[in-house]
Amino acid sequence: MSFFPLKDSFGTTQLILNHADISPDLAILSNVPVESNVLIEGTVLLRPSSAKRPGATGEIDVLVDKFTVLNPADTLPFVPSNPHNLPNDDLRARYRYLDLRRSILSDNIKKRSQVAHTIRNLLHDQGFVEVETPVLLRSSPEGAREFLVPTRTSAAEGDGQSADEPLFYALQQSPQQPKQLLICSGGVDRYYQIAKCFRDEDGRKDRQPEFTQVDMEMAFVSWGENASGTPGSDAWRIGGTEIRDVVEKLIQTVWRNIEGIELPEHFKVMTYHEAMTRFGSDKPDTRFGLEIINLTDLLPRDTQVVSDPEQEILECIVVRKSSDSEFIRASRACESTASTEHISLKDGNTRSWLLQSNVARHVYPYLNEEDLSTVNTALKIKSGDDIWLAHRPRSPKGGSSALGRTRLSVFELAQARGEFTVTRDPHFLWITEFPLFTRDDADKEFLAHGRWSSSHHPFTAPVWQDVEVMYRGEVQSVRGQHYDLVLNGVEIGGGSVRVHDAHMQDYIFTSILQLNEQEKSPFHQLLHALRCGAPPHGGIALGFDRLMAMLCNTQSIRDVIAFPKTRMGADLLFKSPAAVSSEVLYQYGIQPRSSSS
Amino acid sequence: MSFFPLKDSFGTTQLILNHADISPDLAILSNVPVESNVLIEGTVLLRPSSAKRPGATGEIDVLVDKFTVLNPADTLPFVPSNPHNLPNDDLRARYRYLDLRRSILSDNIKKRSQVAHTIRNLLHDQGFVEVETPVLLRSSPEGAREFLVPTRTSAAEGDGQSADEPLFYALQQSPQQPKQLLICSGGVDRYYQIAKCFRDEDGRKDRQPEFTQVDMEMAFVSWGENASGTPGSDAWRIGGTEIRDVVEKLIQTVWRNIEGIELPEHFKVMTYHEAMTRFGSDKPDTRFGLEIINLTDLLPRDTQVVSDPEQEILECIVVRKSSDSEFIRASRACESTASTEHISLKDGNTRSWLLQSNVARHVYPYLNEEDLSTVNTALKIKSGDDIWLAHRPRSPKGGSSALGRTRLSVFELAQARGEFTVTRDPHFLWITEFPLFTRDDADKEFLAHGRWSSSHHPFTAPVWQDVEVMYRGEVQSVRGQHYDLVLNGVEIGGGSVRVHDAHMQDYIFTSILQLNEQEKSPFHQLLHALRCGAPPHGGIALGFDRLMAMLCNTQSIRDVIAFPKTRMGADLLFKSPAAVSSEVLYQYGIQPRSSSS
Repeated sequence: MSFFPLKDSFGTTQLILNHADISPDLAILSNVPVESNVLIEGTVLLRPSSAKRPGATGEIDVLVDKFTVLNPADTLPFVPSNPHNLPNDDLRARYRYLDLRRSILSDNIKKRSQVAHTIRNLLHDQGFVEVETPVLLRSSPEGAREFLVPTRTSAAEGDGQSADEPLFYALQQSPQQPKQLLICSGGVDRYYQIAKCFRDEDGRKDRQPEFTQVDMEMAFVSWGENASGTPGSDAWRIGGTEIRDVVEKLIQTVWRNIEGIELPEHFKVMTYHEAMTRFGSDKPDTRFGLEIINLTDLLPRDTQVVSDPEQEILECIVVRKSSDSEFIRASRACESTASTEHISLKDGNTRSWLLQSNVARHVYPYLNEEDLSTVNTALKIKSGDDIWLAHRPRSPKGGSSALGRTRLSVFELAQARGEFTVTRDPHFLWITEFPLFTRDDADKEFLAHGRWSSSHHPFTAPVWQDVEVMYRGEVQSVRGQHYDLVLNGVEIGGGSVRVHDAHMQDYIFTSILQLNEQEKSPFHQLLHALRCGAPPHGGIALGFDRLMAMLCNTQSIRDVIAFPKTRMGADLLFKSPAAVSSEVLYQYGIQPRSSSS
Repeated sequence: MSFFPLKDSFGTTQLILNHADISPDLAILSNVPVESNVLIEGTVLLRPSSAKRPGATGEIDVLVDKFTVLNPADTLPFVPSNPHNLPNDDLRARYRYLDLRRSILSDNIKKRSQVAHTIRNLLHDQGFVEVETPVLLRSSPEGAREFLVPTRTSAAEGDGQSADEPLFYALQQSPQQPKQLLICSGGVDRYYQIAKCFRDEDGRKDRQPEFTQVDMEMAFVSWGENASGTPGSDAWRIGGTEIRDVVEKLIQTVWRNIEGIELPEHFKVMTYHEAMTRFGSDKPDTRFGLEIINLTDLLPRDTQVVSDPEQEILECIVVRKSSDSEFIRASRACESTASTEHISLKDGNTRSWLLQSNVARHVYPYLNEEDLSTVNTALKIKSGDDIWLAHRPRSPKGGSSALGRTRLSVFELAQARGEFTVTRDPHFLWITEFPLFTRDDADKEFLAHGRWSSSHHPFTAPVWQDVEVMYRGEVQSVRGQHYDLVLNGVEIGGGSVRVHDAHMQDYIFTSILQLNEQEKSPFHQLLHALRCGAPPHGGIALGFDRLMAMLCNTQSIRDVIAFPKTRMGADLLFKSPAAVSSEVLYQYGIQPRSSSS
């Protein structure tokens, strides 16, 4: 007898050739090249229960009577069935159709389909209408990262364009305006779309020039019962509770159907302020401790000499030898950065470490024994503990603080060293009440030129308690009705309640963001739609590729996309992007730019 | 009492204000501008059963206790709730968010969502995996109608491009190659996607630059039981029966769930040859008669003098005063064209009309009495009948013949005159066995330069009986395993069994289409994938916009798209396409072409 593995989309089945009674024709099955496409006819045999293997085809063998080679395989650039001898990423990307023969990849693709199906059914049952919005939209001055699409058709009707001037669409970066206009129409109260979006940016991190969002928008969103909750009380104190409920149902259903995991009825809620002060991150990973402690709160106000508002708060992380034993060696092995100080407590400095800290001394030059004692008692530190120190501004800014980054470094190193095993339970968390405007986003400064920018987008409504604050011009203090959904320290979605008052929207464009007429022009139709009696509304977009990467337990979204591009946006299979001849470009009214310009 | 209509996404509800006991605050509800967004609190009253209206809100009134204006409407460019005073298409397109308040449009959008949901569930249940394929693909020399997308990212890795040369993606015109490569991978046996596709062409007919396809591909497609059926026997004699079965199930389920109509288990099948000879169209409308009759078959061969192979067959349509009474007046009112002759039979010419026909005399100058008699007897003509005459080549070519177009003209005129009412039963029909290659497609001649072109695309397999014919070089005689799905004379989808033999595929590229190396380069990855043991496969794409337009009983696909573009590709709402500044274009390595070039 001889045995052959037969792989199909259901799994691998063992073929049995009984040499005692087979014809010479059948014997040559062993000559068929590996990875060929073969039709097998034979008898299905049940494997003895002791020999059952996992998987859909694990219970059977097939005794071969006859085979037909449907399509023989030529010499292959690599053999995907051999996981121990895989070539490098680029070669596999070039022959993606072979790489996709590996079950680990094709299983991801199938899981993606299952999750999309689950999401669509849930949203359909919740009364959402699936609507396709235009992929070909208008270029906007904001479009620092947009793709342009030249067109050969003549100028837009009645738009006063010269027919000789080249005209462009822009690919949607998100369906933000179309979906808001759809809800403004009142014809659809609940919209969703699993939408392809596009961004022309270099491959920082794990991004793709085309990516997929689960995009939603709802009319008549409202406050929930906890609108008056106090900070730190795990309360959703903003509008959009209907969005929260639907997204939680959606995520719960996906985890139940796909992972067999029952999630809590509600996910925890944390304000941006709390997330930044406790975890130093606007997307905190709450699967482990190492929380940040505010030392300024422990110290008398008059001992502080603050010259720089960026250094108003002194904070620390204590990694304890006793209770943080999984992290203590990683912490000791981590190096301090320009903005952090790392002090290992030994018998000699356990009492006086704060006096010796450069970071602390800088703003607390006059600490006395009593202050030291207060801090040490509050921190309950012991010799052998590790302390990390840094400053931050009183109002947290941006997406992470120095100690937030330190916290993650210690965590990651402890994992890499095998000293800490993170829980497999998914930690979902809502972050709310982000600052509505920012001056600290380098990506936005490109367009803001020193003006305020919207932290997310200019359609987000302020929290109601801050509306007057906004009209008084205290721009930095205004919080937005924005919510991010975070899973295990990764942002998997974000949305907001939108401004539905045309006057307020115009005030934000004109008085806060100080947009000129040209900059405001892409928003004219939205402003007008608000003036037509638009309902209050809000929405969210979930990053589907990232969600799938987490469900498939892979680091790279490329593993959950059938035909992904490289980090640099290159498609090695289809060989794009590529040069195009001048004759073809001419038809679109463009040419390569002259090198002199 | 006074009454107000309140419209929401469920329908219109009647509000009742009881002036006897309402406060002055409430009375001012009548001052709220029309189309404002209002929150109503009150008591739901059941209407008397005699006063029930159709629709979701037709059984109730609401007695108003309190109202809150959530968002007042300003002066509107038009009032969508007044169907008798709608402005022109362009103004409504510009304010599409107002136009979508008309239920007739928002109902279409909701129906589209329902149909998509039905299709997805059916395909999911049939074991199809939904896979997203790249929208950003590579430009191809074939891409006469493709959109280019310049990118700012540096040159594709390792592709030998100069970094200064502008690089482009192209938007997918269909996911043809990605879906075939996916099936070639073997990881997925059944693929589907409701895919956005793009074509940069002028607005001939009812086309959009972005449109939606229900796209499918299946591995291991095969012949059915009727593979040896005879022509004209309503038999599917090609491969891909699994595609046929799934599409019929899908269409049946949509018509059952959405329209409440039970369709036959199998749709009729007709070869291209039969469709062209009986109906003069490759997408015949079989809801009415007026079939074409071949006169050459009735006449003795030796009476024919053929100088032009395009005129080998003489054919006619007889519109009978008796049995075609709905059409006879329309027929008499239709004018003949350059390629048709129109003869009205009167007492004087009922016997001799064929002798007097210019079209007939041209190739039959020597007819005798017996020939006339044979024809007249066979046609059973009578005085008062109308006859249309034309020539065609022996092997039908293209999508329609002169008499096929005449047949439709008479039908349309009879409908417009109110003399014929077409059945409401949908007539589904498969057309199969198209010629695989053509030299008569003006659109393709642009690239073919006198060479053969593929009638559909170069991946379609020949019917098995014609494989030898193809290798013998009798290109014009080769039929393809192609199938179109036709509904009421409109093509709503098409597909084929693909070539899976790399040698045959290369023969088609090289020996038949005579592509040079550069022209073949976009197909390299597919050719290689076939060489890696690809399974036999086939697929289809259904035009989702067109299908929806037919389900919504509208002439224009713009009525089933939330934010459509005009025929010229202009988006009057978002004002695209639009000019882009030279500074921005510079970043993409392009500039407007100089007027001198």
